[in-house]
Amino acid sequence: MSVTAAKGFTAAGVTGGIKASGKPDLALVVNQGPDAHAAAVFTSNRFTAAPVVWSKQAVADGRLAAVVLNSGGANACTGSAGLADARQMAEWAGAEVGCASGDVAVCSTGLIGERLPMDAVLNGIQLAAQDLSTSGGPSAAEAICTTDTVSKQAVHTSPDGWVIGGMAKGAGMLAPALATMLVVITTDAVVEPAALDAALRTATGFTFDRTDSDGCMSTNDTVILLSSGASGVVPQDAEFSEALTAVCADLARQLISDAEGSAHDIQVQVEGAATEADALAVARAIARSNLFKCAIFGNDPNWGRVLASAGTVDADYDPEHVDVAFNGVRVFVDGQLGADRSGVDLTGRDVLVELHLHAGEASAAIWTNDLTYDYVKENAEYST
Amino acid sequence: MSVTAAKGFTAAGVTGGIKASGKPDLALVVNQGPDAHAAAVFTSNRFTAAPVVWSKQAVADGRLAAVVLNSGGANACTGSAGLADARQMAEWAGAEVGCASGDVAVCSTGLIGERLPMDAVLNGIQLAAQDLSTSGGPSAAEAICTTDTVSKQAVHTSPDGWVIGGMAKGAGMLAPALATMLVVITTDAVVEPAALDAALRTATGFTFDRTDSDGCMSTNDTVILLSSGASGVVPQDAEFSEALTAVCADLARQLISDAEGSAHDIQVQVEGAATEADALAVARAIARSNLFKCAIFGNDPNWGRVLASAGTVDADYDPEHVDVAFNGVRVFVDGQLGADRSGVDLTGRDVLVELHLHAGEASAAIWTNDLTYDYVKENAEYST
Repeated sequence: MSVTAAKGFTAAGVTGGIKASGKPDLALVVNQGPDAHAAAVFTSNRFTAAPVVWSKQAVADGRLAAVVLNSGGANACTGSAGLADARQMAEWAGAEVGCASGDVAVCSTGLIGERLPMDAVLNGIQLAAQDLSTSGGPSAAEAICTTDTVSKQAVHTSPDGWVIGGMAKGAGMLAPALATMLVVITTDAVVEPAALDAALRTATGFTFDRTDSDGCMSTNDTVILLSSGASGVVPQDAEFSEALTAVCADLARQLISDAEGSAHDIQVQVEGAATEADALAVARAIARSNLFKCAIFGNDPNWGRVLASAGTVDADYDPEHVDVAFNGVRVFVDGQLGADRSGVDLTGRDVLVELHLHAGEASAAIWTNDLTYDYVKENAEYST
Repeated sequence: MSVTAAKGFTAAGVTGGIKASGKPDLALVVNQGPDAHAAAVFTSNRFTAAPVVWSKQAVADGRLAAVVLNSGGANACTGSAGLADARQMAEWAGAEVGCASGDVAVCSTGLIGERLPMDAVLNGIQLAAQDLSTSGGPSAAEAICTTDTVSKQAVHTSPDGWVIGGMAKGAGMLAPALATMLVVITTDAVVEPAALDAALRTATGFTFDRTDSDGCMSTNDTVILLSSGASGVVPQDAEFSEALTAVCADLARQLISDAEGSAHDIQVQVEGAATEADALAVARAIARSNLFKCAIFGNDPNWGRVLASAGTVDADYDPEHVDVAFNGVRVFVDGQLGADRSGVDLTGRDVLVELHLHAGEASAAIWTNDLTYDYVKENAEYST
């Protein structure tokens, strides 16, 4: 399962003592080769956490031999001392697994603005290195959780003999250009770094970038893709890209399903847009409307709030000719009242909101959550 | 008080029967002259409510003799039938007060997507016309309330002998380019329509446009300014503009203080920006962060969430050199940890968050609210 599903990878997840709770807090993923190819995408937030600064440099040459990840502290907004800590993590991990520190990516998640307890981090790295195994994926996925209630893993097996597996964490700050949200994906397919990078950007563009639980972007978002080439199989570019996108979509869906305090998973689907950019802009505006999100929490098919949100976007469409449907019931048709809203059942967890703009052939979806008492509770009482 | 503070205006607020609750739901404001000058600004939402469509035309010539306003129904997304209803309201009101329907502006607020009960509207217009008086301002302010817990009024008296008075409603959907938010402001100063328009755009640009309680923009937002010239005094442009801005700021502040379910009034002040547009963009990003708003609800001076929001904005500043202060306590200084967050007291209603970008001399503020259980409750259970 997870990051050890593909051949050529070992992993471990352990309790180093970073979290006061005593829960697992350090994970190690090691690429045993023969290849050490890698690609990554990072948060576009300008307050970039130290591990992101480090990992961007580490992956710049298309090579990574290992990833060390911790929960219990984001190592963000910690200045030059925090950057030294991130580098130290890479050095310790590199020494344990026998690679250069420059081939180790670092990921951190947890509270912003506090230094990591480096004794506990070192302890965790040493324990994890001893515990590395080809069945360590699930424990690694467990160790990167913060407010997640379940760990997230996904696997795709190609009939041609190669595998893609991944793990993800993140239950808050899921947003536009990723979330905190740490994702590590491994494959034993034989893929060159440039192709890995292209496939990863395509996959994240269609999945994590369209996952917007609460509109808040993290300082630490990272998605790393490692290939060992251990299957010996060179996949078709298109097939590999499609499989990677499917794995990312699976993980993204798991993130939404476990988002902090959420009661509904909402797909905002915009059809009939003049361009995909228009469709995305409208879908994102709806997905970010707190009034809309509260209505869904209240099981209220409030199409007025859908329109009021769409109406803030400068996309190419005529407000007089749009349709809105909730779970397939068209409550607003061609700019007029449609089916009675009493015919809509929103009591299930999954909600599909469709807006048809009648302006073209393009479409796009954003996945989001409702806004609930529990979201407020968790984020008023828990510092991140 | 309110819209009858200035000479030359009568008003009334009555119960026509539009609201099921039996509370006041129809208001009339009449300009007795000698001038009938007017200016207005409206929502930039593309799903424009019927009364907004009507009122835009009515005020286009810089003249209005009366404004008829109802709560209990927004007359938005109601198609051509709704537009006919808005016109009918203007005709009825014009007939009652003795002016052309084309000189009557119409404002509606309440549920989107339902036709108004026109019998009740007519009843209200007739009752209000009988009840018009120079002391009717407070009852008019009462009649336009929806989820508002108190009516909002403001008055400015110039030592030169002219007065500006206004009323406002709106407790939800307070947002970027206005809110539902209906505002009527009257003055007895002698001011030509073009000058009224310029002063109103300046005033709303600095006040209502920077009031962003929950990031949601309404289909019905309207601010109308009427001048009777009854004082016979021609004010200095600058003095009039300043006074009008003060009245708008007073009303905007009252809207924030009464925003749905809010527990804190937050001023997000950005200093040291390269441009005012940069300052506004950063302030608005912070004011729209649900994580930030939840933290304030929890009395948590969470500067990490302030920075994470600011970091999503493409403004000209260096993330390594910013300061953040909560209620005057600088918890983050020059990109490093500052004073201990335990020194910050957020238990009061007013919260000042200051972000200094050290990139220039420009500054701007956005006024917003926290995100609370009661906001979710009110907007999950109440359809708007």
